[in-house]
Amino acid sequence: MDDNDLPIGVFDSGLGGLTVVRSIMEQLPDESILYLGDTARVPYGTKSPATVRRYALQSAQTLLKRGIKVLIVACNTASAHGLEAVQGETAVPVLGVVEPGARAAAEATRSGRIGVIGTRGTIASGEYRRALQSIAPKADVYAVHCPLFVPLAEEGWSNTDVAEGVARVYLAPLLDKGIDTLLLGCTHYPLLQDTLSQVAGDSVTIVDSAHATAATLAEVLDAMHLRRENQSAPEYRYLVTDAPELFREGGEAFLGHPLDSVEWIDLQ
Amino acid sequence: MDDNDLPIGVFDSGLGGLTVVRSIMEQLPDESILYLGDTARVPYGTKSPATVRRYALQSAQTLLKRGIKVLIVACNTASAHGLEAVQGETAVPVLGVVEPGARAAAEATRSGRIGVIGTRGTIASGEYRRALQSIAPKADVYAVHCPLFVPLAEEGWSNTDVAEGVARVYLAPLLDKGIDTLLLGCTHYPLLQDTLSQVAGDSVTIVDSAHATAATLAEVLDAMHLRRENQSAPEYRYLVTDAPELFREGGEAFLGHPLDSVEWIDLQ
Repeated sequence: MDDNDLPIGVFDSGLGGLTVVRSIMEQLPDESILYLGDTARVPYGTKSPATVRRYALQSAQTLLKRGIKVLIVACNTASAHGLEAVQGETAVPVLGVVEPGARAAAEATRSGRIGVIGTRGTIASGEYRRALQSIAPKADVYAVHCPLFVPLAEEGWSNTDVAEGVARVYLAPLLDKGIDTLLLGCTHYPLLQDTLSQVAGDSVTIVDSAHATAATLAEVLDAMHLRRENQSAPEYRYLVTDAPELFREGGEAFLGHPLDSVEWIDLQ
Repeated sequence: MDDNDLPIGVFDSGLGGLTVVRSIMEQLPDESILYLGDTARVPYGTKSPATVRRYALQSAQTLLKRGIKVLIVACNTASAHGLEAVQGETAVPVLGVVEPGARAAAEATRSGRIGVIGTRGTIASGEYRRALQSIAPKADVYAVHCPLFVPLAEEGWSNTDVAEGVARVYLAPLLDKGIDTLLLGCTHYPLLQDTLSQVAGDSVTIVDSAHATAATLAEVLDAMHLRRENQSAPEYRYLVTDAPELFREGGEAFLGHPLDSVEWIDLQ
């Protein structure tokens, strides 16, 4: 098989990375995708850097063995703790979601006051702060972790009074600082976008790292002459570590269309 | 070592089982305890029966190898999906939390209208309903899953307006049925007891399976002449699959006192 015909490999702790898959499908409709969701061990956001790094390496190796042309670490926590370790394992280009998200936020801000929200692990790593400070050294970055947003999104409570109440508590310290840009540093958060917009108000631009990552992927494919040119329809395949039917049920809200080919695998 | 001197083995997906440890310490202050929390793969409540059973067997085997005189499956989801499989592996007595909790609820009810709350996995298994129907065949059992309670308890939002709002949504169908007893079918839920009492009102008795399990354990130790009679202080040791410091930080709210001896282990 021609390398250009190989799929884009994407992995995440569970469902969240499907927001990245959705953006890739929209921006690169000819590309095949091989997705891995580590649903038997989700979530990563509350776990230690060493454990997240170990899990990220196992997922990366599984996708690399199957043959992919680019690898996307679509989980912010795994990008924050494990990107370098994964890059050290392979000659295939490896992209995280932190760098593209930070770049998009730096482009969006007018006042230079940027809020970042993510899991406990992502925020504690300081990776978004570091990325933003290297792209926009004059920006003021305010970061808070929002651990209840993942379960709210996964349980389908995205547009409820409860979600709004939780968002008010989490965003208050950022709004007090007068941010004009809010960077969603977790692939689950696009599902809460309506609630977040309402609480943050019209003066705050919301930036989604899923969208930014797909745009960076398009640039990388062009730069490396790796775009798929085959005229046949692309293939979308999904690997999961817990039951395929649970992934199918939960995943369709993230992806926005049906999940067909879902296969169980064991990472251990 | 005399068998009576061996510790009680207790395992859970993470922190929740510490509410059972706390009840054992109160009711059986002379017993040593060896606890295992599978914090690298928590939670179990959203995962499939096959995955939960596999994890439960790995935890059980680890504790049995170290030497224990009784094994408590302190996670409701693991009890619901994996108790029989674990019992098939050993001659050591194995107790779950479902049976003792059901018995306590059957004793507490006057009207015979019992509400049960738990994780998605526990409620879907139907094990509480089956246990209650065999103990109290005339009881009316109403069960609902409450997946947001675990993250609310773990994130320290137990006594907040948000927790109260979530509890109102989850408990409404049970209160509409006129229950007089509410069985907490998840070891995390005792942390939400004040909020649950407030929402359920004075006419509803709350039954906690952690407390009931410790009482059953005392009966089993007496029946098998397995009480510890050594005059030295008991030992409390904790094994975890993710970082010990994360367990220590989170666990003290569950246990009600400091966690000293926490050791990392790998179950894979």
